[in-house]
Amino acid sequence: MKEGPVSVAILTIGDEILYGQTLDTNSQWLSAELDTYGFSVVHRATVGDNEPDILQGLADAAARAGIILITGGLGPTADDLTKPCLANYFKVPLKANPAALEDLKALFRQINRELTETNIAQTNLPANAEPIPNKLGTAPGMWIADQGKIYVSMPGVPHEMKGMMTGYVIPRLQEEFHLPVVVHRVVKTIGIGESWLAEKIAPWEQKLPQNIGLAYLPSMGQVKLRLTMMGKDRQQLAKAINEQITALQPYAGKYIYGYDDDEIEQVVGRLLRQQNRTLGTAESCTGGYLAHLITSVAGSSDYFKGSIIAYANEVKEKQLGVNPATLAAHGAVSEATIKEMAVGVCRALGTDAGLATSGIAGPGGGTTEKPVGTIWIAVALGDQVKAKQLNLFKDRLLNIKTTAMATLAMLWRILAE
Amino acid sequence: MKEGPVSVAILTIGDEILYGQTLDTNSQWLSAELDTYGFSVVHRATVGDNEPDILQGLADAAARAGIILITGGLGPTADDLTKPCLANYFKVPLKANPAALEDLKALFRQINRELTETNIAQTNLPANAEPIPNKLGTAPGMWIADQGKIYVSMPGVPHEMKGMMTGYVIPRLQEEFHLPVVVHRVVKTIGIGESWLAEKIAPWEQKLPQNIGLAYLPSMGQVKLRLTMMGKDRQQLAKAINEQITALQPYAGKYIYGYDDDEIEQVVGRLLRQQNRTLGTAESCTGGYLAHLITSVAGSSDYFKGSIIAYANEVKEKQLGVNPATLAAHGAVSEATIKEMAVGVCRALGTDAGLATSGIAGPGGGTTEKPVGTIWIAVALGDQVKAKQLNLFKDRLLNIKTTAMATLAMLWRILAE
Repeated sequence: MKEGPVSVAILTIGDEILYGQTLDTNSQWLSAELDTYGFSVVHRATVGDNEPDILQGLADAAARAGIILITGGLGPTADDLTKPCLANYFKVPLKANPAALEDLKALFRQINRELTETNIAQTNLPANAEPIPNKLGTAPGMWIADQGKIYVSMPGVPHEMKGMMTGYVIPRLQEEFHLPVVVHRVVKTIGIGESWLAEKIAPWEQKLPQNIGLAYLPSMGQVKLRLTMMGKDRQQLAKAINEQITALQPYAGKYIYGYDDDEIEQVVGRLLRQQNRTLGTAESCTGGYLAHLITSVAGSSDYFKGSIIAYANEVKEKQLGVNPATLAAHGAVSEATIKEMAVGVCRALGTDAGLATSGIAGPGGGTTEKPVGTIWIAVALGDQVKAKQLNLFKDRLLNIKTTAMATLAMLWRILAE
Repeated sequence: MKEGPVSVAILTIGDEILYGQTLDTNSQWLSAELDTYGFSVVHRATVGDNEPDILQGLADAAARAGIILITGGLGPTADDLTKPCLANYFKVPLKANPAALEDLKALFRQINRELTETNIAQTNLPANAEPIPNKLGTAPGMWIADQGKIYVSMPGVPHEMKGMMTGYVIPRLQEEFHLPVVVHRVVKTIGIGESWLAEKIAPWEQKLPQNIGLAYLPSMGQVKLRLTMMGKDRQQLAKAINEQITALQPYAGKYIYGYDDDEIEQVVGRLLRQQNRTLGTAESCTGGYLAHLITSVAGSSDYFKGSIIAYANEVKEKQLGVNPATLAAHGAVSEATIKEMAVGVCRALGTDAGLATSGIAGPGGGTTEKPVGTIWIAVALGDQVKAKQLNLFKDRLLNIKTTAMATLAMLWRILAE
């Protein structure tokens, strides 16, 4: 059994990935899976279906890591080069592998098919390779130990690769390596930009112990903080990270809506359920996206009654009860209108809380006074109604998504108070 | 202007990618986009947020390609190392870049915010870099020409990176390189699965000239066929491809809703505008996602009046006028109810056409009679109302998106007839 940090490089082989025809989801799955088991992925690369690039890719990967995981290039056709390249790389011949042939015969008996010559040729492996059984396809995987490093070659077909990893590769790697325990926790903030958050938590960050890694992960209206520790005792590591999360509260507590897998729409849903409150939305510029976020949560029908998407002013008047005089005096994108929309949806659908959005999403429709990106949002709850103006971007879809996120953030702050 | 094949390497920087916390969709988007313009992506790699790996990644990329595109590591925080690493790699200092600062000031005036010290520090760039304006965020991109190679550094945030590529990087690369002419055309089909489509068009595919590449690109309820030709004369290539598209019509014409950048929601919108018809939606299981698709099209307010998202049965009754007896006798997921919903939304919002969805999106709520994935959709137009049952999957989000797509496909077929 080997000691110390165990580094992994992932090499993906395939023109279809390089040309952008196929999204490489294998590498992310492998990375997340390996991370869970305490392996450290230090490098990922994708090369095309040609021998020089594959050989260079193998050499680069081996220079960087103790374990080299290779996916792709194991099919039966002429553009599948992984096996001849591995044979060249290790300077060994390709030869018939009886164990691989036995595995394949067993698979074919199970699916009741005849072996073809092509199938049999797929069981020719580099002489230094042990076959890894493939229960979901005809290409065997390969396990090669060479000069203290382990090379694993697997098919690119996601379910075949995953089957090999789960059924064979991970258990065998765990037997061969003594792994550190890795604990991650993610703190999720909303309603503050990355640079503003960084300034607010600078005193905390400066005091963060050296052995805790910190990463800022910004996304649409949110910033996630990821804390990482590596060690031996899971409980101890979790305790140390949780202490830092407690110490973070005075600096950023008012922006933290959740942890780890929490999403803002789930957290808001949980609060509504706890408080026994129902919700509806009145959407103009978000056009249904806000309702979509809310209803993407399983079980949301417990607290979400529905929405009125009021693109036309007549729908704002007739369905939401917005006063025509308000629209005439202030326009659809105004504080007065947005408040009437939020209150109106509560009345129309009989909900306790109402969210409203109205703005100029773009690219057309802007004026000097109200340029593209001028957006009003409001939350009505009981007798209260709060409104806020946003000044966003020129991009329609970005404005829609950012507005929905800001509206959920506003409701969250009110419910959580 | 440089001649010959133009190779590109993509370097992605970020621990969150290596740890598998974030799926790298940027590399695929970049690959596909570059392929369209005749560049050849020969290598992709991902390295972590540490200087040795970033420097090695830069050197490896430069050894393989003439253009090196770098994403990630440009945020304002201490774990963002791309700029200092580029400065080290080129042995130049980081210094204040007045042009980048001006761009940032303009952005902040637009969103009406004050610049912080952190924001200003983001405009310090390696001395050999030209700033690339970022219209959607605070981190400028960088364009660096060095020893006959071009390095482009962009943020990892997908919409910021895409904005820079489309608005600046692609046009400038096209000016600097002499590229082979590549003509792609995409034929977009809806309402037929990949293998059924392949069978229908097999006689056409067998006669397709060798120098025209064909790719099947299936996605959510649609299959796109991409035809590609490379050569010297754009007009000649386009003519040859268009002839094949004409030849395809007898085999697949009834499934083709558009070409190239057409989206079904745009095509439906164009038909509604041409026919001077207005639209509304009555959504239960899609929860606003259908309205979101429709309103993601700029100018949709010309024909889209609004929606009633009726999650609760009382909203179906009160807002859409569904008969309580229908709900009691057949349930919310039934042909009778879906038809009343589609007709009801036309009446409530005063629209010519109405779309309706109701079903069990899952994961909960299924019964033996109506398992998860049982969904009804309907289109009302004038005096006509058509309904259809779908039997979909166990996954909530997939069911929501597939249902919205199928409903738009149903409306398209009726409007196009």
